[in-house]
Amino acid sequence: MAQKSKKKPTRVKERKKKVLEALEKLGRDVYDQLAHKEFPKVSLPSRSTSNICYDPVLRQYVLGEKTSIRSARNIRHVRPFTQLIWVASFVHTLIKEGRTSTLRDVYYSAQAYDIEFSDQQESDDIITDLETVISFAREDFNVFPEERSAIFGDLTIEYTVPGYEGRRINLTMHPDGVMIGPALTSAEFVECKADKVIVIEKGAMFTRFIEEGAFKRFNAILVHTAGQPPRATRRLIRRLNQELGLPVYIFTDGDPWGMHIAMVIISGSANAAHLRELTTPDAKWAGVWASDIVKYKLPSDPLQDVDIKRLHELREDPRYSGKLWQREIKTFLKIKKKSEQEAFSRYGLSYIVDKYVPDKLKELG
Amino acid sequence: MAQKSKKKPTRVKERKKKVLEALEKLGRDVYDQLAHKEFPKVSLPSRSTSNICYDPVLRQYVLGEKTSIRSARNIRHVRPFTQLIWVASFVHTLIKEGRTSTLRDVYYSAQAYDIEFSDQQESDDIITDLETVISFAREDFNVFPEERSAIFGDLTIEYTVPGYEGRRINLTMHPDGVMIGPALTSAEFVECKADKVIVIEKGAMFTRFIEEGAFKRFNAILVHTAGQPPRATRRLIRRLNQELGLPVYIFTDGDPWGMHIAMVIISGSANAAHLRELTTPDAKWAGVWASDIVKYKLPSDPLQDVDIKRLHELREDPRYSGKLWQREIKTFLKIKKKSEQEAFSRYGLSYIVDKYVPDKLKELG
Repeated sequence: MAQKSKKKPTRVKERKKKVLEALEKLGRDVYDQLAHKEFPKVSLPSRSTSNICYDPVLRQYVLGEKTSIRSARNIRHVRPFTQLIWVASFVHTLIKEGRTSTLRDVYYSAQAYDIEFSDQQESDDIITDLETVISFAREDFNVFPEERSAIFGDLTIEYTVPGYEGRRINLTMHPDGVMIGPALTSAEFVECKADKVIVIEKGAMFTRFIEEGAFKRFNAILVHTAGQPPRATRRLIRRLNQELGLPVYIFTDGDPWGMHIAMVIISGSANAAHLRELTTPDAKWAGVWASDIVKYKLPSDPLQDVDIKRLHELREDPRYSGKLWQREIKTFLKIKKKSEQEAFSRYGLSYIVDKYVPDKLKELG
Repeated sequence: MAQKSKKKPTRVKERKKKVLEALEKLGRDVYDQLAHKEFPKVSLPSRSTSNICYDPVLRQYVLGEKTSIRSARNIRHVRPFTQLIWVASFVHTLIKEGRTSTLRDVYYSAQAYDIEFSDQQESDDIITDLETVISFAREDFNVFPEERSAIFGDLTIEYTVPGYEGRRINLTMHPDGVMIGPALTSAEFVECKADKVIVIEKGAMFTRFIEEGAFKRFNAILVHTAGQPPRATRRLIRRLNQELGLPVYIFTDGDPWGMHIAMVIISGSANAAHLRELTTPDAKWAGVWASDIVKYKLPSDPLQDVDIKRLHELREDPRYSGKLWQREIKTFLKIKKKSEQEAFSRYGLSYIVDKYVPDKLKELG
């Protein structure tokens, strides 16, 4: 069923190696300082809002120059310093053993080591500190979220997880979509016959695209985000774009929340300003635009106060300064309506695949 | 990759045939009445709470004897009668064409036929009416929910969906778990090497069980419910139990909500009293029990008022009259604590697989 590979995997394993090196460097630095009879300390870029700024070249939020020092010399720092080093050691073991964990699991695991966290928020914060220190996302050190999204298309991957190393599957294999979890995220791309990526917010539309054979017709890899995509999925979309050179089109509901799902895939979030390689700056939001609601006479619901408030916020957001975004925000505020992806079913179940998507792909070039 | 099958699929195709027959009978009855110059009508078992009772033999809620008549003669019935017949015709086409849909999609699709629903609640209710009339769940007539859960284990399935007919995959193929969607739900079971089913509430634990090789050690098929399982997943669990004769063990969080996830898999819900074949009466709730919190000295959180209120409700619920359930409800109320599945990580990541699950399987026989 799955074939053994002959060629050596590269990118993913190399990345894991870099993560291990970063963790080991952190540990060595602590030892070196102790050997020199110094109180060990680490330096962290500050994540306070005053140090988060939008970088128009990278097209994402980044951290500024401010750093803070966490030192074992300072009695108030001893606790978070110890916690940070423990988390680094814990995830180092995870990677070494090819295991994964979740934020919740890390919190409970600490108790096995008599490391105290007063609640999960405290351990989550320390995990973010570690991301900041080593400049890798927690998924890179095997800490995954609960939510899962899915992928489908003519891409052959090769696993790198223990027990499956070298095995390959093609992502058209399961017509309900292939789950994006730790094993898929850490897989190498071996062969891809698709020439674009279509990212879809809703499960109903994802299934529709598979059933209607849209992946063949558009020669596309389909990614189902299940709402705001987990970061592992955002990184996977970036890899499809950067490693395979595939253009990315994002289809969401036609409302400020759907629009923002697209934006976070394209330009990331302020929360992840301390990280790179989660964004896909060249990805395109392909709809449902406010202007589509008018153009296709879609069934719609009136915007609620909370939607309107959100639109006003987004209008001022530096990520939304582009022409398309400003035009669509303006149109939403003018028509005061929103529509879901499923609204196209109004013209029959296959309309979205037969008419809307081809029109959009043509329009966006 | 996937092999072509030689033998004819049976159970699933036969079931779809029965659903089609039930829909066609409904249509023929309407035509016959019209041919006899009668106003067409349908008879529906009443779903009012006074007509829902617990059947201790079936070990699930069922509808009583009361029925109501929906007749085109009654001006107030014309609208829901027309809607019902349209939904029946729409899903008949879905099955014929091997397509699926969602509740939301059905709501929008109606507009293509000039059938009016004032909101989605109205179309959802009509879909439930159709379930009641033909005694099949909406998943049987290809209307699926958004949520997806997952399965993993040594079971080979054969697809029946268009484009994949006769293709087979083994459910150990993707180590993130195989999504339970329309294609998996409608697949035939071809060969199973596992001898039990372990149902798991949390994604973290599901991944842990795969990573630690627990599916091999316990020779089990793993099912991830992702909280309260969608009905398609409940039916799949039932099929694993009834078609393959596998015992089913359910592991949830140790709180009233986890306990109730197990109960709904075992005995169903009052909402689905009009349906059969969604329950697995012989499945066992294997933990986390309240008594496990004490026995294993698990990290815990205090019960909230809402948890305590829920426990008092469940204590009076006829589904909870068994000894184990009453004992555990009493223990929860006594210790006033709850614990999550991940709490076992307190003893190391593999403790749950090395110690807890083997103990439990032994205890439950």
